[in-house]
Amino acid sequence: MTVDIDRILAARDRFAPPFGRHAEGAIRRTPLLHAPALDRLAGRRVFVKAECLQFTGSFKARGGWAAVSALPPGTPGVLAMSSGNHAQGVARAAAAHGMAAFIVMPLDAPGVKIANTRAWGAEVVLYDRGREDRDALAAGLAAERGLALIPPYDHPEVVAGQGVLGLELAEQAEAAGIRAAEVLVPCGGGGLASGVALALGARAPGLRLRTVEPEGFDDMARSLAAGAPQRNARAAGSVCDAILTPTPGRLTLPLLLDLARRGHVGPGLAVPDGAALRAVAAAFHHLRLVAEPGGAVALAAALGLGGKDRAADLPDTVICVVSGGNVDPDLFAEAIQAA
Amino acid sequence: MTVDIDRILAARDRFAPPFGRHAEGAIRRTPLLHAPALDRLAGRRVFVKAECLQFTGSFKARGGWAAVSALPPGTPGVLAMSSGNHAQGVARAAAAHGMAAFIVMPLDAPGVKIANTRAWGAEVVLYDRGREDRDALAAGLAAERGLALIPPYDHPEVVAGQGVLGLELAEQAEAAGIRAAEVLVPCGGGGLASGVALALGARAPGLRLRTVEPEGFDDMARSLAAGAPQRNARAAGSVCDAILTPTPGRLTLPLLLDLARRGHVGPGLAVPDGAALRAVAAAFHHLRLVAEPGGAVALAAALGLGGKDRAADLPDTVICVVSGGNVDPDLFAEAIQAA
Repeated sequence: MTVDIDRILAARDRFAPPFGRHAEGAIRRTPLLHAPALDRLAGRRVFVKAECLQFTGSFKARGGWAAVSALPPGTPGVLAMSSGNHAQGVARAAAAHGMAAFIVMPLDAPGVKIANTRAWGAEVVLYDRGREDRDALAAGLAAERGLALIPPYDHPEVVAGQGVLGLELAEQAEAAGIRAAEVLVPCGGGGLASGVALALGARAPGLRLRTVEPEGFDDMARSLAAGAPQRNARAAGSVCDAILTPTPGRLTLPLLLDLARRGHVGPGLAVPDGAALRAVAAAFHHLRLVAEPGGAVALAAALGLGGKDRAADLPDTVICVVSGGNVDPDLFAEAIQAA
Repeated sequence: MTVDIDRILAARDRFAPPFGRHAEGAIRRTPLLHAPALDRLAGRRVFVKAECLQFTGSFKARGGWAAVSALPPGTPGVLAMSSGNHAQGVARAAAAHGMAAFIVMPLDAPGVKIANTRAWGAEVVLYDRGREDRDALAAGLAAERGLALIPPYDHPEVVAGQGVLGLELAEQAEAAGIRAAEVLVPCGGGGLASGVALALGARAPGLRLRTVEPEGFDDMARSLAAGAPQRNARAAGSVCDAILTPTPGRLTLPLLLDLARRGHVGPGLAVPDGAALRAVAAAFHHLRLVAEPGGAVALAAALGLGGKDRAADLPDTVICVVSGGNVDPDLFAEAIQAA
């Protein structure tokens, strides 16, 4: 199975209204915002795709919906391994399709994440990180119950679902008169980046995508530069927890490398944690949006908060995706009170 | 000069794109959002008009633009007396029209409000509350420089500008399949409430408006009940500073009384400060929006945060306007960390 523009268009068809009681459809078309104060801070035009306003508070609702809605009728349920945004995206889609959802999380996952996932009707299966093998546990559960595994990024329908955000961006950029720009996207495993880059390559070739990662966790930037998968030295240790992955996806990296060869993807960027937190504060003050630190790394790069020199190669017009807004109140308070 | 649907439609025409470098027009069409978690909290369907995403962070950008854009060509400048959201709305509109803007503020206004207003290019004129007569100062300045005074609510074009939000709501409700609902609106002097009620009365008669005020500052609710202007006992002492006014407007109250007689406006509501702060937290957690306490009173009422008994007479479907998001970081941190 490959991912191409047709698969992205098919995913969008499955998002379309009417769904349920609300006319928005299953997935919200999030707005493209701008603010003069951000333009002044950045010294360039900055547009923000406010994806933190998506259902479940992150873009993961897109990939989750695309994957679940593509399953054959009669699938008894789905399984995901996630303690974060992907869990909520899958749980919401499963509930809406009348399927059971099992979410495997470590015993020490924050209580609020467990509660949020249960609120979508999912069954949370807890395991002991030290004593149990997560993958074996999940495989056993899936086999026993006939569940379909929905991985967080290495899955064609998940990538296609995230790619719908790129279709929206292509249309919104055209409506705003933007013909040439760079699109900065927070990057973990690369599902959002590869889906969006595919959509832009097909529909808005004047928009070049660049990944943004936390400093020290820039496996995608290094893999794009090397042309082969690179690993991070550390597994944890950044406030941008939503986008920490050890290495790029096996599906997503080849997609991004191919798009880079064709000029649709540029060199990856990285920003320090402090810049991500200052971007959270900027979104609070100037856009009245709640962003999580990992979701704000692209905005941090656009505003040059990681150092003006690093932003020197950005063009006059930059679009950044604020990809999520599920943030602990104490951390959010710290970010806005420090700025 | 009266205010009617034609004046509101004319104001909307003056908002239309293309304006400046952005295709959104002068005023953003803010989204109508919903979240299952809010429906569960409220025990009813709750929709949120996210007006905190408006330019300048509040609905005041609408009235300011409508008033400034209606001035005769050659008007040398405008004058407003405000230390808050109205100041920013007027300053932004004046700058875009190439007019000078003078904003009269007390010497003890918070530095951040003075800075925000200056950032829009306005000249801030400070006065001593104890020793100077604000109105005389403003009248002198206006006469000397030929400035047009833009009051915060008692002005037909300001009311018409706020009314455009009601046109959007009528369209958005129809698209969402909402035929009957109550529309809860934060209320200070009544500019937003009267403009929105006029628009809904003309375009969506199934949507009845209700004002929401802070407890102890419910002059509008009591004036609607009495059929004549009532005053608040206190001038200050609520976290909902943006919507504290001593008494309803001389233009807005008769408009609202007339609309109430025709069934388009229902009894006013009031919520305690604690409920407004809990609504700020709810918007943070479930919508990823930054709301100011005064802008969140309608959401507080819809969610029954002021006591379920007070919300007992609300219908199955409620639309609430979150009218602004300009909030001090310390106060916002307190609200989200308390919840």
